[in-house]
Amino acid sequence: MARPGDHVSTIDTPALVLDLDALERNLARMAAFARGVGVRLRPHAKMHKSAEIARWQVAAGAAGVCVQKTAEAEALAAGGVDDLYLSNEVIAPGKLARVAALARTLAARGGRLAIAVDGATGVERLAEAVRAASAELDVFVEIDVGQARCGVPPADRDPAAAVELAQKVAASPGLRLAGLQAYNGKAQHVRGVEARRATVEQTIAAARATRAALLAAGLPCPLVTGAGTGTYAFEGASGVYGELQPGSYLVMDRDYAENEVDPAQPHFEHALFVKSQVMSVGRDRAVVDAGHKSHAVDSGLPRVHDPWRRRAFAFENGGDEHGILRSIGDVALPALGEVVWLVPGHCDPTVNLHDRYVAIRGGLADGRVERLILIDARGALA
Amino acid sequence: MARPGDHVSTIDTPALVLDLDALERNLARMAAFARGVGVRLRPHAKMHKSAEIARWQVAAGAAGVCVQKTAEAEALAAGGVDDLYLSNEVIAPGKLARVAALARTLAARGGRLAIAVDGATGVERLAEAVRAASAELDVFVEIDVGQARCGVPPADRDPAAAVELAQKVAASPGLRLAGLQAYNGKAQHVRGVEARRATVEQTIAAARATRAALLAAGLPCPLVTGAGTGTYAFEGASGVYGELQPGSYLVMDRDYAENEVDPAQPHFEHALFVKSQVMSVGRDRAVVDAGHKSHAVDSGLPRVHDPWRRRAFAFENGGDEHGILRSIGDVALPALGEVVWLVPGHCDPTVNLHDRYVAIRGGLADGRVERLILIDARGALA
Repeated sequence: MARPGDHVSTIDTPALVLDLDALERNLARMAAFARGVGVRLRPHAKMHKSAEIARWQVAAGAAGVCVQKTAEAEALAAGGVDDLYLSNEVIAPGKLARVAALARTLAARGGRLAIAVDGATGVERLAEAVRAASAELDVFVEIDVGQARCGVPPADRDPAAAVELAQKVAASPGLRLAGLQAYNGKAQHVRGVEARRATVEQTIAAARATRAALLAAGLPCPLVTGAGTGTYAFEGASGVYGELQPGSYLVMDRDYAENEVDPAQPHFEHALFVKSQVMSVGRDRAVVDAGHKSHAVDSGLPRVHDPWRRRAFAFENGGDEHGILRSIGDVALPALGEVVWLVPGHCDPTVNLHDRYVAIRGGLADGRVERLILIDARGALA
Repeated sequence: MARPGDHVSTIDTPALVLDLDALERNLARMAAFARGVGVRLRPHAKMHKSAEIARWQVAAGAAGVCVQKTAEAEALAAGGVDDLYLSNEVIAPGKLARVAALARTLAARGGRLAIAVDGATGVERLAEAVRAASAELDVFVEIDVGQARCGVPPADRDPAAAVELAQKVAASPGLRLAGLQAYNGKAQHVRGVEARRATVEQTIAAARATRAALLAAGLPCPLVTGAGTGTYAFEGASGVYGELQPGSYLVMDRDYAENEVDPAQPHFEHALFVKSQVMSVGRDRAVVDAGHKSHAVDSGLPRVHDPWRRRAFAFENGGDEHGILRSIGDVALPALGEVVWLVPGHCDPTVNLHDRYVAIRGGLADGRVERLILIDARGALA
C-alpha cells in the first residue's frame, strides 16, 4: 500500500489517507476550545477507531475517549487506551460479562470504564455482571434529548423516568451514578448556525431540567456529557454540559463541511481523503477505482478535492468499486492514471471500510508517508 | 461470536449469518440453469469474497469465479481458487506487476487468470507487465453495453473502437484475446420482467454486433461473458453469451427481491441475514444494535425478516450503530433483547463489512452453527 518515506504519488489506490498536519491543527483547536470554556473533552473514537489516535487526543488534554460498542472498547483498551466511556446501551448478558471484565482490567491499570443505560432491565443485568466479576462501573443515564433513538424521556417531558432510573443505578452495588448522557445526533447537521442553535437550546433545556430533577431528588449528577462536531460550541457554553464528545472535528467530511459555521468558532480542516485513480476514460466521463466499498455513502457521495487546479468535477455513483467523474463546465476530464482525491461524505463509516490509514505530512500534492496507522476497531461491531 | 454446534439464539449480535440450506439450494438452481441452457457459469465473487464459497461454486460446475480487484484475486488465489477472471480494468503499473505475477502463479498450478481492458494504454501496460514477468494472460475487451461506466463503445455505436482494441490485444505477445466483457449493471434492477427484457435486448444486440465485427475483421471471439442476477436468463438464452457472471443469486438481498421475477425462472431465496437484537425500547420504537456499519445502505435500508410471527416492522435509519423499528399497524414492538433478523438492502457491500460469516443449518428459528467462514477478500480494495 505504502511505506514510510514514500512520496504521496506512489500510494496505491484506493487508499485512506490521513493528512497529519491538518489533523494536528484540528486536534489542537478543539483542545483549546474545551480548555477555554472550561469543559472536559472526551472525543468519540467510533469515528477514527484507532488506539494511537485516541492516545494523541488524551495527550492533548482529553479525559479519555468515547466508544459505541463493546468490541470497540476492547480493541482500544488492547491498544493502550485506559479511560473509555461506552456511550451506548449493552443488553446481552454475554456482552455485559465482557464489559465487566474490561472494567476490572482498566481499573487494575489505573484507568476506568463507564457505560450508558436507558432502562431498568439494563441496569439489573449490568449490576449482575458487575457483581459476578467483582468489578465497578461508572454509569450515565441516557436521556432522549431530541434524537428519538435511545434514552429515557428527559424531566421536561417526563418528571419521573430519569429520576427513577438514576435511583436504581445509585442503589445498585458496583454501579456509580456518574451523571447524564445527553446527545442529539439529529442536531449535528442542521445547516444554519441559528437553526442549529435553536435546536440545541431544546437539547440543553432538557438536560438542564433533568439534572435539576436528579438534584431535587437528592441524587448526585456529577457530569452531563454529550455534543458533536456540529453543536459542541453551544453545549460547551451552556453551563450544563461538563464534557463534550465530538468525533468528526478531527478529520471532517463532506457532510460536516456543508454546515454553516459560526466564524467565532474554530475552523476544522479536511484531514481524511480517499486517494483514487482514473482507471478508464470515456468521451464524457472518467472512471476512478473507488466506489462505495472504499467510501461510505450513507450521508451522500464524496466530493472531489482539487484545491490546486480549480477544476470542477462532479462525482457520480459508479457502484461498489467505481466512481464516475463528469466535467462541470468546460474543464478537461482527468487523464488515465491521474490521481483524484475524494472527501468522503461521512467519515465514521468510511474509516470502518479500511484496515489502515496512510498518514502523510507535507500535503497531498508533494507530501511523504510518515507511517501506517492501524484502525484497531475496524469491524468491531458487537 | 459463535462456535460450531451453538444454537442460532446464542450467536452474538450484530452478526452476518449465512443460511447454508438456502445457499445450497440457490447454488444448485443456478448451476442447473446454466447446464440447461448450455452456457458456462462464472459467478461473481466480489459478492461473497470467500475462497471457500468460490470452491463450492466450482465444485457445483462453475468454470471459476470473477473478481473485481487485484487484491480480491490475490486473496481468493491464496485461498485455493485456481481459475479467476478480473472482470475490470487495471491501470497502475504496480498493480499490473501483481496481476502478471498472479497469472504465473495460477498457471503454474494448472489454473488461469484473465482480465478486462478498455483502452490502448491499458493494453500496452498490461503487455509490458506480462513481458517483464514472463507470464501469459487471457484478455477480454470490455464494451459498454448500457452501464456508461467502463468499456469501449460496442460496434453498433462505433464500428472501429472494439475491433481496434481487440487487434491490439491479439498483436501483443503474452496476451490472448479471449473475447468480450459485456455487463450491464443498470439493467439488473429494472423491476418489471418485460422492461428488464427490453433493456437487456439492447445489451445483447450490442454484444452480438461487436462479436460479429471482431469475426468480420478476422479476429477470434471465443467467449462473450457478462450478466447478473437480474438478467442472467436473458443473456443465457441469447445465443451470444457463452458465460454468465451472476453473484447475488447465491444469497440474495432486499433490492433483488423487489424485482419482478419470471415464474419460469428459478427462485432464489434469502440466505444472508444480519442478526440483530433489541437494545432499547421506547414508547413508539424499538432500537436494534445494527446500523450501517453492519449493513450497507447504498441500495436502501434493510427489511425486517419475520416469516414466523407475521409481525410487520418498518426499519428506519438509526445511524452507524443503531436501527429503529416502528410498528406497522397494530402489532406490539419487539421486546428488549429480542432477536431481529434483517435482510440487507445490498449483499455485496454488506458482506464487505464483516470478517466472517456465521454459517448455520436448520433455519433461523431453531438451527445450529455449522462453522465460521472467513471472508478472505474483505477490505481487498486495491
